[in-house]
Amino acid sequence: MTAINRQWCLAHRPEGDIEDGDLELRETPVPEPGAGQCLVRNIYLSLDPTNRIWMSDADQYMPPVEIGDVMRGGTIGVVERSNGGSFKVGDVIQGLGGWQDYYLTDGVGASRIPTEYGFPLPAYMGLLGMIGATAYFGLLDIGQPKAGETVVVSAAAGAVGSIVGQIAKLKGCRVVGIAGSDAKCQWLVDDLGFDAAINYKTEDVLAALRRHCPNGIDVDFENVGGEILDAVLSLLNLKARIVLCGLISQYNATEPVPGPYNFTQILMKRARLEGFIILDYAARFPEAITELGQWLSAGKIQYRVDIAEGLEHAPTTVKRLFSGGNTGKLMVKVSEEPV
Amino acid sequence: MTAINRQWCLAHRPEGDIEDGDLELRETPVPEPGAGQCLVRNIYLSLDPTNRIWMSDADQYMPPVEIGDVMRGGTIGVVERSNGGSFKVGDVIQGLGGWQDYYLTDGVGASRIPTEYGFPLPAYMGLLGMIGATAYFGLLDIGQPKAGETVVVSAAAGAVGSIVGQIAKLKGCRVVGIAGSDAKCQWLVDDLGFDAAINYKTEDVLAALRRHCPNGIDVDFENVGGEILDAVLSLLNLKARIVLCGLISQYNATEPVPGPYNFTQILMKRARLEGFIILDYAARFPEAITELGQWLSAGKIQYRVDIAEGLEHAPTTVKRLFSGGNTGKLMVKVSEEPV
Repeated sequence: MTAINRQWCLAHRPEGDIEDGDLELRETPVPEPGAGQCLVRNIYLSLDPTNRIWMSDADQYMPPVEIGDVMRGGTIGVVERSNGGSFKVGDVIQGLGGWQDYYLTDGVGASRIPTEYGFPLPAYMGLLGMIGATAYFGLLDIGQPKAGETVVVSAAAGAVGSIVGQIAKLKGCRVVGIAGSDAKCQWLVDDLGFDAAINYKTEDVLAALRRHCPNGIDVDFENVGGEILDAVLSLLNLKARIVLCGLISQYNATEPVPGPYNFTQILMKRARLEGFIILDYAARFPEAITELGQWLSAGKIQYRVDIAEGLEHAPTTVKRLFSGGNTGKLMVKVSEEPV
Repeated sequence: MTAINRQWCLAHRPEGDIEDGDLELRETPVPEPGAGQCLVRNIYLSLDPTNRIWMSDADQYMPPVEIGDVMRGGTIGVVERSNGGSFKVGDVIQGLGGWQDYYLTDGVGASRIPTEYGFPLPAYMGLLGMIGATAYFGLLDIGQPKAGETVVVSAAAGAVGSIVGQIAKLKGCRVVGIAGSDAKCQWLVDDLGFDAAINYKTEDVLAALRRHCPNGIDVDFENVGGEILDAVLSLLNLKARIVLCGLISQYNATEPVPGPYNFTQILMKRARLEGFIILDYAARFPEAITELGQWLSAGKIQYRVDIAEGLEHAPTTVKRLFSGGNTGKLMVKVSEEPV
C-alpha cells in the first residue's frame, strides 16, 4: 500500500474537447478516516459522457466540479480502514469516489456490492449499477415500449445503449441501433440481437432508418442529439416517446448549439420528449438491479467492458467517449481487486 | 338567399407570409344536398394559426389542403336544407365548413350547438369549442399544474392563451403571460387576472420572466417557440412540463428553423415536453365544454372575440394572426345569425 494518493484535479474548464492541461495530477498523502468514516481504495473508475458536463460550469443537474477539486467520478473500491464507518474492512462498495486512488466516505451515496452473488466486479459498472439502471428505467419507465413497437437507440454500442437495445428485445420490440463503426454495428446485430444497426459515419442515417424502420419509430432512446436526433424525429409515429438521456454530440461545443431542426415533429406527432437522469430513480434501484441480475444469470443479457489500465491514463481515456473510441462500458482499472 | 357560393381556394402554397394571390375567390352555384346530406350556410369562420400549416405541404397532423381545393376552416353555420341528413333545418352546427358561404355535410365531424343554453354563438368559437378544449386539456391533462406552481403562457392574448391563463388561475397557479403589446398585457392582468404579463416586443423576455417567476417555471403552455421558448427553458424547474401546442413563430419560415438552443435544459431539468393537438381529445370534448360553460355562467372565465365582417376579408384577416394583430379569438362573420 502506497502512502500516496494520486488525484486528478480540474485545472481548467475545457473549451471544446478535453485537453491535456485541463486535468492535473496531484499527489497527496492517503487521508486518515475521521470518526464515522471509512477509507476506500478505488479499484475501478467509471468514465462517462457526463464527466464532460461536470467539467463545465453550464447549468446542469449536479453542481459542476470546482476548479482545483478532485474530478468527480463513479468508482468501485474496497474498504481498507474503518473508523466506526458504515462499512466493514474488506467490503466492496460503489460510490462517487472520484478520480483518485483513495477516498474517505461517511457512507452517504455509497452502497455495498453483494460480492457473494459471484458476479465479476466490472459487471457492477457495466450492467448492475448506474448504467443498467439508466437503461432499465429510461427505456421502460419513460419510453414505455410495447411489444411489436420499433425502438431506436443512438450511441447503441455505448454502455447504456447496448443494454437498452437488449432490454427492448426482451420486451418484444424491433430494435435499431446507431453506432460509429462497422465492428460496433456487427456486435450489436450478431452478439446482442439488434434487428439492425446503422453506421452513422458511413451511412445516410435518415435513409437507413427509413429502411430499417418500415413501421416508423415509436421509441427513441436518445444519447446523442444533433443530426441523429433530427433523422429520428422525421420518422416518429403518432404518440412516440423520446427518452432524452444524453446529448453527447454537443457536450464539447464551444458555440451555442441549436435544438433539432425537426422540433416541429414533436408537435405534429404529439410525441413526448422527456429528460431523464438516473439520480431521480435512486429509491427504485433494487428493482432494476434485481431483474438485470436475473437476466444476466439466465444468459438473457450481456454487457461489455472496455478497461484501461492505470489511473494515470484516465484523462486520455475519457476522451475516447467523444471520438467513438470505446465499445461498451469505458472504465479505468485503478488498483487490483481483492483476492 | 344568393344562389352563389363564394369559395376561397388555395391557389399557391405560400412561401413565407401568406400573400394576396395565395388564395383565390371562386364563385360556384350553391350545391344541392344529396341523399343523407344537409346544406349548411356558414355564419362564422374561425381563423387559426393552424390554417397556415394546412396551406403548406410540410409533414403535418392532417393532410395539407390541396391546390385548387377550398381552404379548410372551422365554421359555425345553420342548416338550410336537409335531404335525410343528420340535422334538422334551423339547427346551428359546428364543423370544418371551410372558407365558403355554403357546404354540404353528411354529419361526420359536425355537431349541433345547443343554442337552448342561451350562450351567444361566438362563445362557441371563442371558448366552448376547439379553442376552449385546447386550453382545457392542454393545460390540465398535459401540463398538470398544481396549485402554487408557476405557469407561463406564450401568445397569451390569443384565443387559446387567454383561456389557458384563466384556467391556470382557477387552479391556483401563479400565471405569467407573454404577449405583443402593452394593451394586450394590460388586458391579461387587469381583466383576466394574470399575475403578470410581458410585452415581448419591448421587454427583455428572459429578464422579465426571471423577475415575474421568482420560483422558476413549472408549466409552459407553448404557442410560439423560437426565442420565447428559449427564455422559458432557461428557467425551468425540475420536472417541469412543456405543453407544445403551437410554434407560430416559425409557420411562415422559408428556411429550416432550428429547435431551441436551450434544448439541453430539458435533459438537465428532467422536463417533459409533449406535443398536443386537440383532435386526439375529441371523445372527451363534453368534459371540457361542460366545465367551461359552468365557469362562463358563473362569471369565472371570459373570452374575447375579434370579428372581421365579410368572407371576402378572410385572407387579409388571417394574416393578423402572424403579426400580432388580434386579441382573443379571430373570426370572420360570413352571414347573419338566424333570428
